Amino acid sequence: MDLLARIDKAVARAIAIGQGGTPPARLAEALHYATSPGGARIRPTILTSVALACGDDRPALTDAAAAALELIHCASLVHDDLPCFDDAEIRRGKPAVHRAYSEPLAVLTGDSLIILAFEVLARAAAEEPLRGAQLVLTLAQRSGMPGGICAGQGWESEPTVDLAAYHRSKTGALFIAATQMGAIAAGHEPEPWFELGDRIGEAFQVADDLRDAVMDEDALGKPVGQDAAHGRPSAVAELGLEGAAKRLKDILAGAIASIPSCQGEAALAQMVRMQSERIMPSAVRHLA
Amino acid sequence: MDLLARIDKAVARAIAIGQGGTPPARLAEALHYATSPGGARIRPTILTSVALACGDDRPALTDAAAAALELIHCASLVHDDLPCFDDAEIRRGKPAVHRAYSEPLAVLTGDSLIILAFEVLARAAAEEPLRGAQLVLTLAQRSGMPGGICAGQGWESEPTVDLAAYHRSKTGALFIAATQMGAIAAGHEPEPWFELGDRIGEAFQVADDLRDAVMDEDALGKPVGQDAAHGRPSAVAELGLEGAAKRLKDILAGAIASIPSCQGEAALAQMVRMQSERIMPSAVRHLA
Repeated sequence: MDLLARIDKAVARAIAIGQGGTPPARLAEALHYATSPGGARIRPTILTSVALACGDDRPALTDAAAAALELIHCASLVHDDLPCFDDAEIRRGKPAVHRAYSEPLAVLTGDSLIILAFEVLARAAAEEPLRGAQLVLTLAQRSGMPGGICAGQGWESEPTVDLAAYHRSKTGALFIAATQMGAIAAGHEPEPWFELGDRIGEAFQVADDLRDAVMDEDALGKPVGQDAAHGRPSAVAELGLEGAAKRLKDILAGAIASIPSCQGEAALAQMVRMQSERIMPSAVRHLA
Repeated sequence: MDLLARIDKAVARAIAIGQGGTPPARLAEALHYATSPGGARIRPTILTSVALACGDDRPALTDAAAAALELIHCASLVHDDLPCFDDAEIRRGKPAVHRAYSEPLAVLTGDSLIILAFEVLARAAAEEPLRGAQLVLTLAQRSGMPGGICAGQGWESEPTVDLAAYHRSKTGALFIAATQMGAIAAGHEPEPWFELGDRIGEAFQVADDLRDAVMDEDALGKPVGQDAAHGRPSAVAELGLEGAAKRLKDILAGAIASIPSCQGEAALAQMVRMQSERIMPSAVRHLA
């Protein structure tokens, strides 16, 4: 089974838990709507790749961790799209959850996905409770306050922004969670895996800025030019297109160099290289 | 230290974790605003009382469980007050979070409190990882989908409502969490504690209906007459004032009778009796 199929299956199993019994039907349906089709599943792919590089001795725990991380990511997209934030009409090429269902159901979908993420970890933790507790802790720290993606969004309500803290929490946090949770699921220490996640997060931030600047709405599946429209800080605004493309290439080289020594080091480096090619917009590839 | 002081201290410690380092200041402040002053802290009081009745051999785990449960409850209040739900102006006698801060910060405050609840459990779980995993699982199941308070809110978006499922998930779920998490924190099986939580939840639902019907806005600290205004099902609409007051008394007697045999059974029965007197509105006490 390829990685993406493994992850999609883990996410589907998680959603089935949230839809069990006789739940309120529209909210149950919205949980599925918000998590599929899943796009590239980049964060759980990184998580599972790190777990595999570390031996993946508890695949059920790895799958739970991958699903939990993807649920948190999807929850953040649903809430970020709400009218009081980005007021996005489309997401992944289809109507945003609050458009397809309603605003109350979008709030509840995000809340339910967050909680389901921790439920999925707790269920898998019965087998390895110490790793389970570490997974819950790491996911919580990278999702909430003071250093997770909630904090990242929170910085947008501040009169003055700590830019480093803003980027690390808003975009970087879930990539750090990805590498560290992959290590934890396979029984390794999380600390040596911080740098890889942090650098991948930085790369995605720059890639996101590039896509927002050069792609069109149909190709991206969401509104473009949002950074310029909202006067948000961006690598393109700071370095220009060419500078940002070069910066992206450098960060990814540093990411690969940071991979801790482990049995699956070469395969993991290959995965990071593939993700790098995927995230560099083709319109700027010749500039890097 | 009395119970309320113990719980307030545990909640304050949890909020301090969410405010650690140099977080976005307004969101950090809103976490505190949404959780204090805390009102009666009824759910964590029940949780801690059950843990004490079961021996409370891991007080740090009990405190973490009590704080986590209260954070989830406060998060649900913040999100329920949002314009797309109740659009409440006041809560506990002061402006609702989205009024005092902003709608984006209210969404993020709820999200952050939910995540912080699981972080607090994970930190305390290092000592007793198996109990920790069971606490995370129980809290998640009673908070999210398909049977927790998110499901309860979700029923309000359905064309036809399963009333029993609606009440059990919307009001009952966190009381079931309270009794079961108290037992788990002290190393007891959660199953025998389901009935006590379920009955207390039912009592609070009826008491809430009575308060909504007979109290005024100043005394209640939130808008009244909401059930009638929104055509919501209510024990008062179904049974009349006297019938609802009698029903509340019967449920509480059943709750006390359901307490599993344990070392602190008598003290726990006394606590439930005190809570009963507290929740019966004085205007209808003579009717019961």
